[in-house]
Amino acid sequence: MSLAQEMEELFYEKIPITRALGVRVEEYDGRRLVLSAPLGRNVNHLGTAFGGSLDALAVLSCYGLLWLELRDPDSHIVIRESSISYDRPVRGDLRAVCALPDADALATFKRALDRRGRARIELTATLQDDGHDAVRFRGTFVAFR
Amino acid sequence: MSLAQEMEELFYEKIPITRALGVRVEEYDGRRLVLSAPLGRNVNHLGTAFGGSLDALAVLSCYGLLWLELRDPDSHIVIRESSISYDRPVRGDLRAVCALPDADALATFKRALDRRGRARIELTATLQDDGHDAVRFRGTFVAFR
Repeated sequence: MSLAQEMEELFYEKIPITRALGVRVEEYDGRRLVLSAPLGRNVNHLGTAFGGSLDALAVLSCYGLLWLELRDPDSHIVIRESSISYDRPVRGDLRAVCALPDADALATFKRALDRRGRARIELTATLQDDGHDAVRFRGTFVAFR
Repeated sequence: MSLAQEMEELFYEKIPITRALGVRVEEYDGRRLVLSAPLGRNVNHLGTAFGGSLDALAVLSCYGLLWLELRDPDSHIVIRESSISYDRPVRGDLRAVCALPDADALATFKRALDRRGRARIELTATLQDDGHDAVRFRGTFVAFR
């Protein structure tokens, strides 16, 4: 089983609403995680993607990427706070992209986690509509042992 | 059918993921809307409520309260941006409370909607854990005709 498939199984088992959302792992290249979800299950009253589903997919893309980066069964990751801007409606399937922050920020985070058993990091994710950035998400995540 | 039941039906029909989330309308007194969702369907890998579900319920409580306040079939409501702080884990069923803003802010919003066919308003919602505020949500919503 690939790491991406393992992630999908982990979502379904540990965060069961991901199955109802229809979350799929689309791509993972070691630096970037792409998750998708079908519009049909996540549609709102205007026929576009529901804000709550867009936020959930963004959160999961960040959480998933951090999980793949740490690959540490003794570490847990939680979200501390976030903000999100819905700049355009998403009219097709949902696709959230989260990329790792720069190497310095990542090294600082891992060092703090090793030393103190607890560290925080800021991650961003975007969702597009028809090639344009539609939703911008930023969140602070905390890892602890 | 009560207004609160009508709201629940509207959620299920127009935003189908609300059925998977298990969203229920608990209370509406004209000033405050309370929504709930069972922990079981919205649990995360740590046995507490998933951040994405908490955000979705907060968004729906604000959206629903505004819908009940306007009761205008020609108006649509969308979320523009929001921020959320997860101060404590939610270890039981989810319960989001949104109350209307002060009378002046509400009157300004309604006047703008009448005059320009478009207006924005800021709403807040909270979710508690065992009597303590656990999640604080703030969002800007836009209504248009």
